[in-house]
Amino acid sequence: MTGAIQEMIELLARLPGVGRRSATRLVFHLLESSPEYAVRLGTALCQFHSQIERCARCANISDRNPCPVCSDSHRDHSVICVVENIPDLWAIDAGGTYRGVYHVLHGLLAPLDGIGPDDLNIDLLSDRVKHDGIDEVIVATRPSVEGEATAMLIRQSLNQLPVRVTRIASGIPLGSELEYADARTLERAIKDRKEI
Amino acid sequence: MTGAIQEMIELLARLPGVGRRSATRLVFHLLESSPEYAVRLGTALCQFHSQIERCARCANISDRNPCPVCSDSHRDHSVICVVENIPDLWAIDAGGTYRGVYHVLHGLLAPLDGIGPDDLNIDLLSDRVKHDGIDEVIVATRPSVEGEATAMLIRQSLNQLPVRVTRIASGIPLGSELEYADARTLERAIKDRKEI
Repeated sequence: MTGAIQEMIELLARLPGVGRRSATRLVFHLLESSPEYAVRLGTALCQFHSQIERCARCANISDRNPCPVCSDSHRDHSVICVVENIPDLWAIDAGGTYRGVYHVLHGLLAPLDGIGPDDLNIDLLSDRVKHDGIDEVIVATRPSVEGEATAMLIRQSLNQLPVRVTRIASGIPLGSELEYADARTLERAIKDRKEI
Repeated sequence: MTGAIQEMIELLARLPGVGRRSATRLVFHLLESSPEYAVRLGTALCQFHSQIERCARCANISDRNPCPVCSDSHRDHSVICVVENIPDLWAIDAGGTYRGVYHVLHGLLAPLDGIGPDDLNIDLLSDRVKHDGIDEVIVATRPSVEGEATAMLIRQSLNQLPVRVTRIASGIPLGSELEYADARTLERAIKDRKEI
């Protein structure tokens, strides 16, 4: 194993979830498959970052600015869902139920890691609430210490503004078994019970 | 998710072992990491197939012809290890114990799948045995129906030639437990027992 093959294995092994063994298997797959595919993927990779832009409004990442979500007139532009990162945005949007717009923080408060309020995309959120006729801000950060702290920070930053600020529900995931839920999730599920 | 991101997910999801979910995760990793890496990997992929050659002697795949194994004068060129494919060659060579050369069949006999003797790189093996002073041919195809049939075919094709033809041992893998070995492996391990 030398030169081009070795280099390809090393490059692929740097991808998350791809160890040296999987990288070797991928390289062998490339060797066996058509050169056309390798060239298509290669070209797409070379052009990738230059085609990608951050939306000036919501900080979503796409090949357009404003992003396809912000420029979609069929969406409800009076509701903003605040998410930690792009995968979370994709996950919520893939559901198809939520038809409002988003705001991507690109992180969560984590003082121990040196991530403070100024490192998050929060100022722009207040601006949007002030100027874009926003009725509701749904904070969809994860229910962890960092996620809750970030939610509180957002709540405070919007305190003076006439907007409803809500938090996504926490509890037992649908279809899962109660006996496998952790104690804190169960506690929360009972605390946040509602009339039926 | 549109355009460049969508295309990248679809291209990556075509790799073996990478589903749509992992592809999405990989794309997000690319978005977060430096453009430099994407361009390096992209360039390597575009050039990959044009840099790769099949060795005219052993059919190994590398960026040289003859391949680094065949052109390595420190190896024992009188012993040929016959393997099914390139990953098998890499696996044996990574061990570091075998210091002979190789012969890659690029397949196994599989009449039901329409793969006959002419589809395997066997003729060239007889030529090498005839002309290159080969003392031993080790048949290292897997111990399956196809692998054994291929081994028999190689045995026959070399019948008239003054060369020792051997077969790799089958039995209980080192470090594994007997109780988990399948019945046929156990049977073989007992049948092929040796003096100690």
